[in-house]
Amino acid sequence: MEVRARAPGKIILAGEHAVVHGSTAMAAAIDLYTYVSLRFPTPADNDDTLKLNLKDMDLEFSWPVGRIKEAFPELGSFNVSSPASCSLEVTKAIAALVEEQNIPEVKIGLASGVSAFLWLYISIHGCKPAKATVTSELPLGSGLGSSAALCVALSAALLSLSDSVKLDFDHQGWQIFGDSELDLVNKWAFEGEKIIHGKPSGIDNTVSTYGNMIKFRSGELTLIKTNMPLKMLITNTKVGRNTKALVASVSERTLRHPTAMAAVFNAVDSISNEMATIIQSPVSDDLSITEKEEKLEELMEMNQGLLQCMGVSHASIETVLRTTLKFKLSSKLTGAGGGGCVLTLLPTLLSGTVVDKVIADLESCGFQCLIAGIGGKGMEISFSGSS
Amino acid sequence: MEVRARAPGKIILAGEHAVVHGSTAMAAAIDLYTYVSLRFPTPADNDDTLKLNLKDMDLEFSWPVGRIKEAFPELGSFNVSSPASCSLEVTKAIAALVEEQNIPEVKIGLASGVSAFLWLYISIHGCKPAKATVTSELPLGSGLGSSAALCVALSAALLSLSDSVKLDFDHQGWQIFGDSELDLVNKWAFEGEKIIHGKPSGIDNTVSTYGNMIKFRSGELTLIKTNMPLKMLITNTKVGRNTKALVASVSERTLRHPTAMAAVFNAVDSISNEMATIIQSPVSDDLSITEKEEKLEELMEMNQGLLQCMGVSHASIETVLRTTLKFKLSSKLTGAGGGGCVLTLLPTLLSGTVVDKVIADLESCGFQCLIAGIGGKGMEISFSGSS
Repeated sequence: MEVRARAPGKIILAGEHAVVHGSTAMAAAIDLYTYVSLRFPTPADNDDTLKLNLKDMDLEFSWPVGRIKEAFPELGSFNVSSPASCSLEVTKAIAALVEEQNIPEVKIGLASGVSAFLWLYISIHGCKPAKATVTSELPLGSGLGSSAALCVALSAALLSLSDSVKLDFDHQGWQIFGDSELDLVNKWAFEGEKIIHGKPSGIDNTVSTYGNMIKFRSGELTLIKTNMPLKMLITNTKVGRNTKALVASVSERTLRHPTAMAAVFNAVDSISNEMATIIQSPVSDDLSITEKEEKLEELMEMNQGLLQCMGVSHASIETVLRTTLKFKLSSKLTGAGGGGCVLTLLPTLLSGTVVDKVIADLESCGFQCLIAGIGGKGMEISFSGSS
Repeated sequence: MEVRARAPGKIILAGEHAVVHGSTAMAAAIDLYTYVSLRFPTPADNDDTLKLNLKDMDLEFSWPVGRIKEAFPELGSFNVSSPASCSLEVTKAIAALVEEQNIPEVKIGLASGVSAFLWLYISIHGCKPAKATVTSELPLGSGLGSSAALCVALSAALLSLSDSVKLDFDHQGWQIFGDSELDLVNKWAFEGEKIIHGKPSGIDNTVSTYGNMIKFRSGELTLIKTNMPLKMLITNTKVGRNTKALVASVSERTLRHPTAMAAVFNAVDSISNEMATIIQSPVSDDLSITEKEEKLEELMEMNQGLLQCMGVSHASIETVLRTTLKFKLSSKLTGAGGGGCVLTLLPTLLSGTVVDKVIADLESCGFQCLIAGIGGKGMEISFSGSS
């Protein structure tokens, strides 16, 4: 049988950087997914390996189950229903397993992703043979939450086979988890994220697990249900960023200009909260979809100006802004800035011809364009084959 | 004999737009001047006309003194030492005098400039023949205070011949007025500005009269003496702006997002005050010129981001920003935005070769570049010929 799980990527709608200094930020799920499929050999297959196939990169890793058991003498002591952090001892054991695979060094972050895979797989499912196949619609390392989506989809797929989750194995198509089961997925995914990112904020895995939007401030997360369809053009400048250095540069600017920057962060806080209000408010005669979109566009433009004030924009981001502005579309960077991705709101009434032209212009600059619905589904799961 | 007066233009260093909403702004004199020369015919010349020669535009207007007397039956009732606003009746009489001159309609604002000339001339000097010649290093209507510089230079030249000002007519070269005399020049220039602009802020004429820098907030002006040389590249995008519409658009945005915009204005206020502190602080071992310049550059970048947040930037401004950023130079729009001029700080240690390259790049975009010292002299006067 095959278990398939998918989990969405995320964007930061408003409040990046300022959130580090106490402002509210808004993150949203996007309808671009990472898919994890798990297939289990029958005894007749006589296959006693754990395989990880990263289809988009054309890479496959494989460990004999005996080799894994050897590396984890205390196997079986894990408790699926209470996610735990990877101990130093286990980290070392995993590192050894990963090292054996001769992972191409050019793929930055790949080794940590494989480590997270092994940790989640072994912790949740134990030491059993399987073939895990990963594909993704999300560009890697561009701030769209691809690593969190991987951790969420993998945790979901593995938990669906555990006693902690109740599902209908005969159901056709995607199905979702119950609330407490989602909480468990989110917790495990966060443990995976820790292996990949060290100190993740937990925003990415939370958005990927539950979908919709999340308002967050000082570590407190609030789920926001959207009351309007929202489509964004996501332009990947492909310019690599050093998120830590960018966060540090904003902190240094804040130390140099505490009063001015405090006011800037207040402005961002207010923008995030206004966005949340608009997105949650029902479409009514008072405020049409177009009016709501115009308000969001103005708030995006304002947030972008404030991010420029923080000093985290980049020539490539400015190029995207200029290009989309030619078509009277509003954009802002999303995430760390200094490159990475830019959001452009695509209003409901915008013609496809215009969208095609914008994309052609942006692609001619060497950028990658993705269109995504915003604030949609979280993780989902489906089964096929005889169980 | 000939009286020559010159008065500087101005830039807004920080706080444009936000000042309308209660923030502090900083304006500075630039060492680009408008020159007014007055020559008076001898009885032997048998010339009984008042001439205004606008040399840069190759235009000359001329009024028989008798025609002016006809238009102003109550002539002689003006009091030089107490500047008064132009009454409705006088406005009409001046409009008639201006109308007779067939002023080219393409020169927007020219008629009001000629009206201001007549009002100041007749009010301060009475109805006597003369030839006034005006030349300027300031591009017209680009927000660099060319109209205020004209009003200041003209008022100064005229007042230098009145009993209200004590000067040394035998002094060679430029000389300055006493403080109370400067106050009088400033008041008259403000009356001229009213004719040109309707409701001027009074900043432009004040900076042009006193030079240096001025910090202003809620109508209160404070003269700031600079303790550092400061050089700016001023790029005139030549894109015409509608200042009133831009000011209105910021106010509308403020009504839509009162909390966010209040925070933005607070940030600008803090930036203006920081700039004033840096500029006034003596150069010491604590803070070198280069360190002071770097701080100013950062504050300019921050102010520009906040102006973008207010929505008053423009594609042409962004082009200037992008071009100067390539050379690691910091820029911000100055004045109303939506086109107009952009400031780029030229650090003391910047090589002339780089400056030449930046200017070449900007001029290739069709922009006009001016280099100006910032925070220098106010109006000055000189006499030549036998008195």
